[in-house]
Amino acid sequence: MTDAVPLLVADIGGTHARFAIATPQPEGLPALAHITTIPTADHPSLAGAYAAFAAGVPAPLPRNAVLAVACPAEGEVLQFTNNPWSIHPAALAAELGLDSVRLINDFEAVAHAVAHAGPGDLAPICGPRSGLPTRGVTSIIGPGTGLGVAMLVREGGLHAVVPTEAGHIGFAAVDGIEDLLLTAVRRGLHGRVSAERLVSGPGLAAIHLAMGGAPAENQKALWAEVLAQESSEARGTLERFLAMLGGFAGDIALAQGARAVVIAGGLGARIGERLAHPAFVERFRDKGRFREHMHGISVLRLLLDEPGLLGAAVA
Amino acid sequence: MTDAVPLLVADIGGTHARFAIATPQPEGLPALAHITTIPTADHPSLAGAYAAFAAGVPAPLPRNAVLAVACPAEGEVLQFTNNPWSIHPAALAAELGLDSVRLINDFEAVAHAVAHAGPGDLAPICGPRSGLPTRGVTSIIGPGTGLGVAMLVREGGLHAVVPTEAGHIGFAAVDGIEDLLLTAVRRGLHGRVSAERLVSGPGLAAIHLAMGGAPAENQKALWAEVLAQESSEARGTLERFLAMLGGFAGDIALAQGARAVVIAGGLGARIGERLAHPAFVERFRDKGRFREHMHGISVLRLLLDEPGLLGAAVA
Repeated sequence: MTDAVPLLVADIGGTHARFAIATPQPEGLPALAHITTIPTADHPSLAGAYAAFAAGVPAPLPRNAVLAVACPAEGEVLQFTNNPWSIHPAALAAELGLDSVRLINDFEAVAHAVAHAGPGDLAPICGPRSGLPTRGVTSIIGPGTGLGVAMLVREGGLHAVVPTEAGHIGFAAVDGIEDLLLTAVRRGLHGRVSAERLVSGPGLAAIHLAMGGAPAENQKALWAEVLAQESSEARGTLERFLAMLGGFAGDIALAQGARAVVIAGGLGARIGERLAHPAFVERFRDKGRFREHMHGISVLRLLLDEPGLLGAAVA
Repeated sequence: MTDAVPLLVADIGGTHARFAIATPQPEGLPALAHITTIPTADHPSLAGAYAAFAAGVPAPLPRNAVLAVACPAEGEVLQFTNNPWSIHPAALAAELGLDSVRLINDFEAVAHAVAHAGPGDLAPICGPRSGLPTRGVTSIIGPGTGLGVAMLVREGGLHAVVPTEAGHIGFAAVDGIEDLLLTAVRRGLHGRVSAERLVSGPGLAAIHLAMGGAPAENQKALWAEVLAQESSEARGTLERFLAMLGGFAGDIALAQGARAVVIAGGLGARIGERLAHPAFVERFRDKGRFREHMHGISVLRLLLDEPGLLGAAVA
């Protein structure tokens, strides 16, 4: 987005597609208008959902679009995991009746939003309250359905967003309870267990079982129960989840040489202020000889409501 | 090193300090002359070792130096872990009688050498034989006394070496043998176990014990025994070490979003062609749904003899 022409943006996940019109501002993030959420199940294709959005906007629509998609934004055909939509990038602009369409990964979009976020868009969790570094690496970690991770690299006045698959590194157990958790999940997978299997929305069910909780009927209800904190199992489960997320965030900061960490993602927003819990902070810092080093890393959470749409606009 | 003036370079570790004169070449890495290795134990300070080097060089010495040091190159005083030397950066040029002295971390220097290496300086281990990517991230991993890791980031006009502490992420066990190894080492440390505790020179002793070997008398002898491959314990230990190094390298590639991985470091050189062993390659790729993705990553080993000295010259 190099000039002040509005842009069509979308954030397309498994369950919902969100569309909006983004208007650049002189500084920082663009303004979003006509934000519309459309269940993907209501339409057989992206073109149908887009037509439904377009029909509801009284103003003329921009001719250029950037779509953030919850899958790798490469290849001849993009097939979503949790909905029947498929996207053919080469044919997409014609299909939607637009001049140009650019696709980026949705978590990469979140990282671009972080790159342009103002101090008021980030709340401190722990570490120095110095905001994001103007030089070096910021790690952006988004627990949700999966565990998205991207790097923002700033060096010599330039900046780049690097998408990673860091959620898929091996899960590193640090005590007897996590050894048991790891062994139980490994049995189900017949092999190695990635961090994402446990440090994510779906991972909570395994943690809850390990903390003495009953098998969960569905993930959404379990998260509501755990966040309500009305039983000792719920409290134990949330503490353990926060500790495991803190431990993972600390490992990613070490692995990426980061000076700051931003927690984003659907769960990051949902857990909110509880991220400052000692279970998270202590485990983030519990890196042996690197404890002092970890104290020097700023950890923040992203407060933006629509980081995918905003990031698509500035990517 | 922006013009063709020779530079004094050094690579200072715990046991040895190496000095040389580096002369820039029109392309690629500089030429090294008068390479001199001095045991740190022979001199009470860096100034003494430098004087011994200078006395042996018949030509006039360059007036500007870059020193690669095996410790973080920041702070008012640098204290080496394995030798009694300490360095006061502010006073160093005067102490050595030079116009300027710059300090960088030794593994950061290795990464700079990789950034300027030619195709002949890198040997393929597995993956596409396309060499280093001109865009994206290359992970540089150096097992040795420790487990050094740095990133070379080429993206959006940015070209940067980023030092990391990735060797200190938690060790992720993938099977029952590694569970036992992890538990045994955790007991000795009273807590979390970093990858470096196992995937490094000193880590071999614990692996050898777990594979049924006898307790090692000293690390150097154990490495010689394991590399000689004359017993089933030695073979089992080397395979397990290669698998664990491959697994770690794969996790770092995922964590850093890398398109290529370079294995460097003292052990990388010592293990040499054995890095192409299926134990390494299989475990590098064994990342569940990301197996295909891992097949697309070029893995190479660094063939340069003096990457620390060369990297100091081009940093």
